Amino acid sequence: MSSTAFIHDDFLLSTATARRLYHEHAAAQGIIDYHCHLPPQDLAANRQFTNLFEIWLEGDHYKWRAMRANGVSERYCTGDASPAEKFKAWAAAVPHTLGNPLYHWTHLELARYFGITELLDADSAERIWHTANEQLATPQLSTQGILKKFGVETVCTTDDPADDLAHHIALSQSDLGTKILPTFRPDAALAVHRTDFFNAWLDRLQAASGMEIRALDDLLAALNQRADFFHAQGCRLSDHGLDFCPATACGEGEAAAIFAKARAAQPVDSEEQTRYASFIMLFLGRLYAERGWTMQLHLGALRNNNTRLFRTLGPDKGFDSIGDFPQAVTLARFLDTLDTEDKLPRTILYNLNPADNYVFATMIGNFQDGTLAGKVQFGSGWWFLDQKEAMEWQMKALANLGLLSRFVGMVTDSRSFMSYPRHEYFRRTLCNLLGQQIEAGEIPADLDLVGGMVRGICHDNAQSYFGFPA
Amino acid sequence: MSSTAFIHDDFLLSTATARRLYHEHAAAQGIIDYHCHLPPQDLAANRQFTNLFEIWLEGDHYKWRAMRANGVSERYCTGDASPAEKFKAWAAAVPHTLGNPLYHWTHLELARYFGITELLDADSAERIWHTANEQLATPQLSTQGILKKFGVETVCTTDDPADDLAHHIALSQSDLGTKILPTFRPDAALAVHRTDFFNAWLDRLQAASGMEIRALDDLLAALNQRADFFHAQGCRLSDHGLDFCPATACGEGEAAAIFAKARAAQPVDSEEQTRYASFIMLFLGRLYAERGWTMQLHLGALRNNNTRLFRTLGPDKGFDSIGDFPQAVTLARFLDTLDTEDKLPRTILYNLNPADNYVFATMIGNFQDGTLAGKVQFGSGWWFLDQKEAMEWQMKALANLGLLSRFVGMVTDSRSFMSYPRHEYFRRTLCNLLGQQIEAGEIPADLDLVGGMVRGICHDNAQSYFGFPA
Amino acid sequence: MSSTAFIHDDFLLSTATARRLYHEHAAAQGIIDYHCHLPPQDLAANRQFTNLFEIWLEGDHYKWRAMRANGVSERYCTGDASPAEKFKAWAAAVPHTLGNPLYHWTHLELARYFGITELLDADSAERIWHTANEQLATPQLSTQGILKKFGVETVCTTDDPADDLAHHIALSQSDLGTKILPTFRPDAALAVHRTDFFNAWLDRLQAASGMEIRALDDLLAALNQRADFFHAQGCRLSDHGLDFCPATACGEGEAAAIFAKARAAQPVDSEEQTRYASFIMLFLGRLYAERGWTMQLHLGALRNNNTRLFRTLGPDKGFDSIGDFPQAVTLARFLDTLDTEDKLPRTILYNLNPADNYVFATMIGNFQDGTLAGKVQFGSGWWFLDQKEAMEWQMKALANLGLLSRFVGMVTDSRSFMSYPRHEYFRRTLCNLLGQQIEAGEIPADLDLVGGMVRGICHDNAQSYFGFPA
Repeated sequence: MSSTAFIHDDFLLSTATARRLYHEHAAAQGIIDYHCHLPPQDLAANRQFTNLFEIWLEGDHYKWRAMRANGVSERYCTGDASPAEKFKAWAAAVPHTLGNPLYHWTHLELARYFGITELLDADSAERIWHTANEQLATPQLSTQGILKKFGVETVCTTDDPADDLAHHIALSQSDLGTKILPTFRPDAALAVHRTDFFNAWLDRLQAASGMEIRALDDLLAALNQRADFFHAQGCRLSDHGLDFCPATACGEGEAAAIFAKARAAQPVDSEEQTRYASFIMLFLGRLYAERGWTMQLHLGALRNNNTRLFRTLGPDKGFDSIGDFPQAVTLARFLDTLDTEDKLPRTILYNLNPADNYVFATMIGNFQDGTLAGKVQFGSGWWFLDQKEAMEWQMKALANLGLLSRFVGMVTDSRSFMSYPRHEYFRRTLCNLLGQQIEAGEIPADLDLVGGMVRGICHDNAQSYFGFPA
Repeated sequence: MSSTAFIHDDFLLSTATARRLYHEHAAAQGIIDYHCHLPPQDLAANRQFTNLFEIWLEGDHYKWRAMRANGVSERYCTGDASPAEKFKAWAAAVPHTLGNPLYHWTHLELARYFGITELLDADSAERIWHTANEQLATPQLSTQGILKKFGVETVCTTDDPADDLAHHIALSQSDLGTKILPTFRPDAALAVHRTDFFNAWLDRLQAASGMEIRALDDLLAALNQRADFFHAQGCRLSDHGLDFCPATACGEGEAAAIFAKARAAQPVDSEEQTRYASFIMLFLGRLYAERGWTMQLHLGALRNNNTRLFRTLGPDKGFDSIGDFPQAVTLARFLDTLDTEDKLPRTILYNLNPADNYVFATMIGNFQDGTLAGKVQFGSGWWFLDQKEAMEWQMKALANLGLLSRFVGMVTDSRSFMSYPRHEYFRRTLCNLLGQQIEAGEIPADLDLVGGMVRGICHDNAQSYFGFPA
Repeated sequence: MSSTAFIHDDFLLSTATARRLYHEHAAAQGIIDYHCHLPPQDLAANRQFTNLFEIWLEGDHYKWRAMRANGVSERYCTGDASPAEKFKAWAAAVPHTLGNPLYHWTHLELARYFGITELLDADSAERIWHTANEQLATPQLSTQGILKKFGVETVCTTDDPADDLAHHIALSQSDLGTKILPTFRPDAALAVHRTDFFNAWLDRLQAASGMEIRALDDLLAALNQRADFFHAQGCRLSDHGLDFCPATACGEGEAAAIFAKARAAQPVDSEEQTRYASFIMLFLGRLYAERGWTMQLHLGALRNNNTRLFRTLGPDKGFDSIGDFPQAVTLARFLDTLDTEDKLPRTILYNLNPADNYVFATMIGNFQDGTLAGKVQFGSGWWFLDQKEAMEWQMKALANLGLLSRFVGMVTDSRSFMSYPRHEYFRRTLCNLLGQQIEAGEIPADLDLVGGMVRGICHDNAQSYFGFPA
């Protein structure tokens, strides 16, 4: 088989039924990318990338991590090597990533952005560098060009409550065919134990809200105001990154006292932080419910494990891994407390440890209340789980323990404009899984029925679930 | 493929070898349903069901859970809608359960009880309602008719020690061809922290035993007496539902003091409850060993997570999920303590979190003592794990880490008289798995050898393991 | 299919591509068995086994465990039955192990050592006993003959720091074509809570090192001296067996005080042991890094669960199982502390609970520093995980989350000279997995590329990684 055949029309589609499902029901659907980390400024400026390094390697901790594991020195990952040198180092590492999703993503991205079907390695690096760089100079591959090329209907970025959303506002007034909406991510509001960081953030929030923040009350008021502002800019989702869901009983007076210590730059211990965070999470849950937003919880990462390189490089540089924190008891308590007040918003639970798949896939069932199909969602395979094996696990868990048919589907969750083929990758994986089940007689060979489910998961469910502004 | 073909002779049997194993070795075996929650009174009264709602939906939390996830309001689950309305709501939800075991169970049950091979959905609901209801009026589909139809040799119900077993006694004196035996489930005896519930139960136990229960000694004596009474009615199994196995050292004096507090309606905290429960579990383990009973431990559920609906609807209404409690250390300590005294009964360990499969499948090996093949069993996929994916995991874990050939096999664990095809479902899954392994050359293509194993797992192992009265 | 066909040339190779990968790239590679528990004295003496019992059953807790689960009394496992009786009891149990790796190992070993392709059971036992015993008398099946027969290039045994390595020294001076190297396993140095055992071991260490050990300083000096001695004998790896990695902050003064208590035969509690062990582990990590050794951590066993039989039989008799200890936080902290000092050695992390696969496979990525391809390794399926299902999980986790291509591959981890076919078993499983992925289009059908990866994993990666002396 020639190397050009690796990415082909039926990539990952191992049965005739899978091929029909994909080509007839999945491929043509628009993309609703309801969770990502794309920089709004690059969209507002309609950034044009100088070369493949800028669009592909500059901020990609997945690739750095693979390169380090391949014995490539930091100079070629995040260091001072030139863009072309770094690209060559990556190209030479690619054959060693066989079996890793990077191998799939790499070749799918080269094929879909540039029509390059040659396998990337040390030999092809030079050719591919030039071919891709030429095309990157065309308007079709500006940031806005890319959204059009991939049929992206909606993008939800991830934003701090202190953000002024200037780029979102500019984009909403442009003629860009894709909705670019903000997502409310108030992780900083919980970080009462990181005194300097917390106070600096409160100062930024003061500036953004025009409200003085001296006491907990002030913070809550400011968060409310920022949520209204985000809502006016089309925000319909929030997002949280948590080791585990804090759910310790904590009254407002107690939370206010902990806040006051932190605001006065006094140390707050881990137990106080958990209590305070528990209070804030309930406050925010209600806030989301009242606005009809969807609450996303990303649970279970073990972050910043490499102190030496964290000190040099900072966060999100490829030194995070999967934790094994207990999740079930506190998550249930948190959701239950909101539900008891009739203030549980639409919720998406994402786990990072696949050993928790069945815990999460059954947890959502506890809080389905019949008001909305799939009100509480088991989120798509995230980060380390954003690959065929783990996507299949997530979808099978959801199918076996809940309703796969009501799943709102895939997100890129990416910092990169090269990641849109991950929707294609997910859709192929979904159709391959359903095709196998049909051919094994596990679900009926009724392609209207199953095809409708495919369209729902790829696009229609998300469209109706999130209630984006028209 | 027409919809009538979904349930066919070779449903789930994906290889020729699987088909031979199933049809030649599994299909004709009688059923020993050694753990279920069928109501004895319905058996004693030979209840005839008025309609498909009564037999199928009235008490089925799996279906309610799926309906709620599908956006169906509580009125059509447990509320005041009419039976026909509820059935229609369920029928309309069925196509959305594609990929869930409910989809399999639903159509297998319609096929096996009523010969209905049409797929259930909003369109077919009316036709199926009438066809099924007509047949439900015939004696073949009374509760006793159903046992005969499915070749059920033995049923073990699940009963409170305070139960008078009147229905079991009546049934044992009837000419019913199926043995209906009680199972001793003394969960209430551990609930020293739920003061009102505990004392009310003690009062019921007093009445049942005719023994006054003032102190721990009295409780132990009453449990002994009830165990003798259960044994005389053919009881050979006990059952426990536990988050995790309590195994804290606790002397009799200490346990007696905790009991005394509870009996005096004083609050008992969680740590005291664990110590007291540890004492009682050891007492009960010895009691079971002395009678030659089998001890079943169902471990790892996280129950009653939805306070709002628990208050309205009570327990077992579909608001439970899978916990992530540590299991290994305390479970090993409990079993070891009994084993050290030579008082470890035959034991079946059921886990609810499949992440614990390998822990449980290796735990049983620690206490196999050579007195009996498969003395300590890794129980069949339970509750959320009672489906093809999780059954396969359980069987592969048992095969890889122990002896699949000595497995006592499937139980319905059901509240419904419509659940008998779950044995067929399990047997098809078992034969499909073994057929695949034979065709992959992982086990020899010796159908006498493998067929004998199939017959053992479907029927013969349970028959010899439990020592039911003749 | 006749029984002789069970082990055939293409055993476990289910695709044409798998067969090519195995026969063209894997089969002929030499064996580097960098972790096992073979007794050096048997190698030095070039032991000849009297019969199949001696070489196969005498010390095999896997077989005893299966026999006990099959209802075979202890007399035929570890008791006073004759070798022939024990062999017959095992033979009769074999058909009941269908689906267990023992079934595969048994027949692979009979085929590879003796050319016996008949299935072992009660009927064939007598024949096989005689055939095998005759061959065991030949020089081809002495311990040294076996190493030659299987192309074993290097064997790393597992040795106590107090060991005099006399057999290793003798072997290094012999003309044996296989390198027999020691591995430094200082578990005893952490056992400060087992007063008698600890002091007896310190006395042995004193004798071996010729250094008096009164205080912690003395122990550290003795460990350094023994490490130098081991290094001179070709040791390049260390090994640890731990429930979980201890990583509590503990200064040298504090550790010295705990050591002093233990050395004075005073009790040390569990919390003190953890602190002391944390100190020692960091000391040892640095020691390994300074010598360029590889540090192996075997994490997560729950040992000696059966007190009754532990008292009679001692450790490692088949009463251990898989634990569910939290692993991530402390493991990350330990590795990070060493890395921060630039003293993290090459490291291999082995988990025993497969629920931790993704935690471990991502943990290694946190500490890849680009100095060496695959510096931190996710170890091969170990103990209960040393079978097809779990090997596939481990390799898929490594592939999806790291670089499978840099994997140092398989070890026997065995006490038995009959275990060398486990390398073949692993290689077949590896090639079968890659063959399936090629045929599914998940990796390119480039057999040079994939074949190179296979050769690396089977042999070449280990050769370059460990830096064994020439």
